Amino acid sequence: MTSVITLLTDYGLEDGYVAACHGVIARIAPQSRIIDVCHLVPSGDVRRGAAILAQTVPYLPAGVHVAVIDPGVGGSRRAVAVEAGDHVFVGPDNGVLSWAVQAVGGALAAYELGNEDFFLKPVSPTFLGRDVFAPVAAHLATGRELAELGPRVPVERLVTFPAPTSTISEGVVEGEVLSVDHYGNVQLSISAGDLVTLGARPGTTLAVRLGRRQISVPFRETFAAVAPGEVVAFTDSAGLLALAINSGDACQRLGLPPGAHVRIHPAP
Amino acid sequence: MTSVITLLTDYGLEDGYVAACHGVIARIAPQSRIIDVCHLVPSGDVRRGAAILAQTVPYLPAGVHVAVIDPGVGGSRRAVAVEAGDHVFVGPDNGVLSWAVQAVGGALAAYELGNEDFFLKPVSPTFLGRDVFAPVAAHLATGRELAELGPRVPVERLVTFPAPTSTISEGVVEGEVLSVDHYGNVQLSISAGDLVTLGARPGTTLAVRLGRRQISVPFRETFAAVAPGEVVAFTDSAGLLALAINSGDACQRLGLPPGAHVRIHPAP
Amino acid sequence: MTSVITLLTDYGLEDGYVAACHGVIARIAPQSRIIDVCHLVPSGDVRRGAAILAQTVPYLPAGVHVAVIDPGVGGSRRAVAVEAGDHVFVGPDNGVLSWAVQAVGGALAAYELGNEDFFLKPVSPTFLGRDVFAPVAAHLATGRELAELGPRVPVERLVTFPAPTSTISEGVVEGEVLSVDHYGNVQLSISAGDLVTLGARPGTTLAVRLGRRQISVPFRETFAAVAPGEVVAFTDSAGLLALAINSGDACQRLGLPPGAHVRIHPAP
Repeated sequence: MTSVITLLTDYGLEDGYVAACHGVIARIAPQSRIIDVCHLVPSGDVRRGAAILAQTVPYLPAGVHVAVIDPGVGGSRRAVAVEAGDHVFVGPDNGVLSWAVQAVGGALAAYELGNEDFFLKPVSPTFLGRDVFAPVAAHLATGRELAELGPRVPVERLVTFPAPTSTISEGVVEGEVLSVDHYGNVQLSISAGDLVTLGARPGTTLAVRLGRRQISVPFRETFAAVAPGEVVAFTDSAGLLALAINSGDACQRLGLPPGAHVRIHPAP
Repeated sequence: MTSVITLLTDYGLEDGYVAACHGVIARIAPQSRIIDVCHLVPSGDVRRGAAILAQTVPYLPAGVHVAVIDPGVGGSRRAVAVEAGDHVFVGPDNGVLSWAVQAVGGALAAYELGNEDFFLKPVSPTFLGRDVFAPVAAHLATGRELAELGPRVPVERLVTFPAPTSTISEGVVEGEVLSVDHYGNVQLSISAGDLVTLGARPGTTLAVRLGRRQISVPFRETFAAVAPGEVVAFTDSAGLLALAINSGDACQRLGLPPGAHVRIHPAP
Repeated sequence: MTSVITLLTDYGLEDGYVAACHGVIARIAPQSRIIDVCHLVPSGDVRRGAAILAQTVPYLPAGVHVAVIDPGVGGSRRAVAVEAGDHVFVGPDNGVLSWAVQAVGGALAAYELGNEDFFLKPVSPTFLGRDVFAPVAAHLATGRELAELGPRVPVERLVTFPAPTSTISEGVVEGEVLSVDHYGNVQLSISAGDLVTLGARPGTTLAVRLGRRQISVPFRETFAAVAPGEVVAFTDSAGLLALAINSGDACQRLGLPPGAHVRIHPAP
């Protein structure tokens, strides 16, 4: 087992919660390296956490990845560890792990976290990150076996978000806003390949329908190819089509929150 | 001596100040592991820093814990190192260390930071974190002795905040708001044990008086036990009673800033 | 070569972008230590990034320092590695490195990042931090030679910001606002030495002209020397004159954004 552990939470950075998880890990697995994936996931936004983890994990070392976006903390959802590729994902079984598991090849095995020997006791029912997920990850990093964690869970019973999809029909690709980043760049569930299928290449112009409006958007290699303040479409660092405004906030100006529908075809 | 160093400051994350402290430590003690406890303590809020450190330190490895919430920087308060349990706390003697020292068993010995051989020179009077506290911690992490730091300070002369307390009288427990976290959860200076004394257990209802208002609040194992938007009382991850709103901000909606008084009794 | 790598970006902390860079480095150079200098540089603010790096690097260990404030990402500016003192700086050649290079003694050699063997492929044109700058830094940390990176660039052709300067004439020193920190403290391009030249020492009063207003400001060792709410001038932790308000926000109250001009002379 590797000794890299990564952490994704919605704990924020204003309290000592993230540090408590680091501390628990450092006590159990002092040789481990901890990488903070993100702690500013909007509170309880499981889909946003799932998207960040899935788009980051291809660049992380083999290791144990903990994701605690858990609005049902203390409720009835299972806590699980899922093996996929070189990686182990640890967190609530509410979908937050599912896109990352797919991104590295799909689940090979899964176990429910039932063995309390791996927990920090007493377990606070409102801070499972510190008392369950972090210590489980740390023990795995020291070489303990997944099978020691608890009963095996059939991988097809894991809670899995439907993959964000696009549909192509009659020369139009339809998708939705998958994610909005720090810059306000709007990431769509439409891949660069979809546009190739439609015959649109960087250098051409796209007709983008957002609700009742239709706008013409230049499709370029990068957002820097248009003047500051102008809208642009480009293939983003995850291989998906993104709408951006050079030096501006596309989410705000175009009114495109996560989940909004978008239809695109090559401009005539 | 251990080689874990932790940092708690109000430096924020928008500048290079935290990194300068990391750099100073990495130069003196390259083998040390640094854990950031929190750097978003509200500027100069010594009590908030003290609460975060005290509630986090039980989960941190043995080590040197630096806390720099220091509105009197350059003023007359002492700079100290305090030994308690397996830990050494380094910071201004203004109370910021006091609750954490108590949390790990109380001060065993204390020294004033007087020996300038441990400082980075010239010492900027406005950045003692970088020039005094971080290098002192780093030298301790390399094995230097506390007694080398400067004159011994009698532990009973250390500035100590009064422990946040609750009082129980005639079936009513009275306390105050100790801390408000990132989610807006309101932590009270009332322990789970206080409620047991009053005969209130999870599953019952509490009558909570806030100023002139009185509200009925379900007392549950976790905030997820009530519907989104509803108020709930639960024992938080520090063992203290907290008021929360499932998927909401209790501090804002109930108007309960730190220091506000609260009276609670079991609802009839 | 050393194994310390530092990162400065405007990526923010709300996404997985910083973690992707950490991951890429940890995969190539697992023994390296990563120090985050700052990731909250305002988006595209190259000067602010340059100032933070220059004022932090004197406290960082010898190593490879990556700075990615790159509003022209994918445009025509070069990507470079610059050797200076014990340090190597890696980033876009847009000035962001220039003040830090000066701060550690000036450029000894520079190379354009042309050798794609050091990149992560395919290179996303919008995430050079992850695909170019981080992997180049990681390979350097493992001992690869600068000369392997690409063609040598004459150091005098590197894009260099003019050093922020002050001018002294007829008993008046004139400078500008260089930087504003998290506390709202206003850092001027006027050094402590300039004031010595004018005969002003801590304990005296300065006449400070801001646009059409002139105010009297006590010059003290530290901002804590004045009462809360009062304006004070002091030599900051970078050796520059700063205007602050004890427990307040000087930038906001005095209306002094970066670039604003200030004239100062000793008060009669």
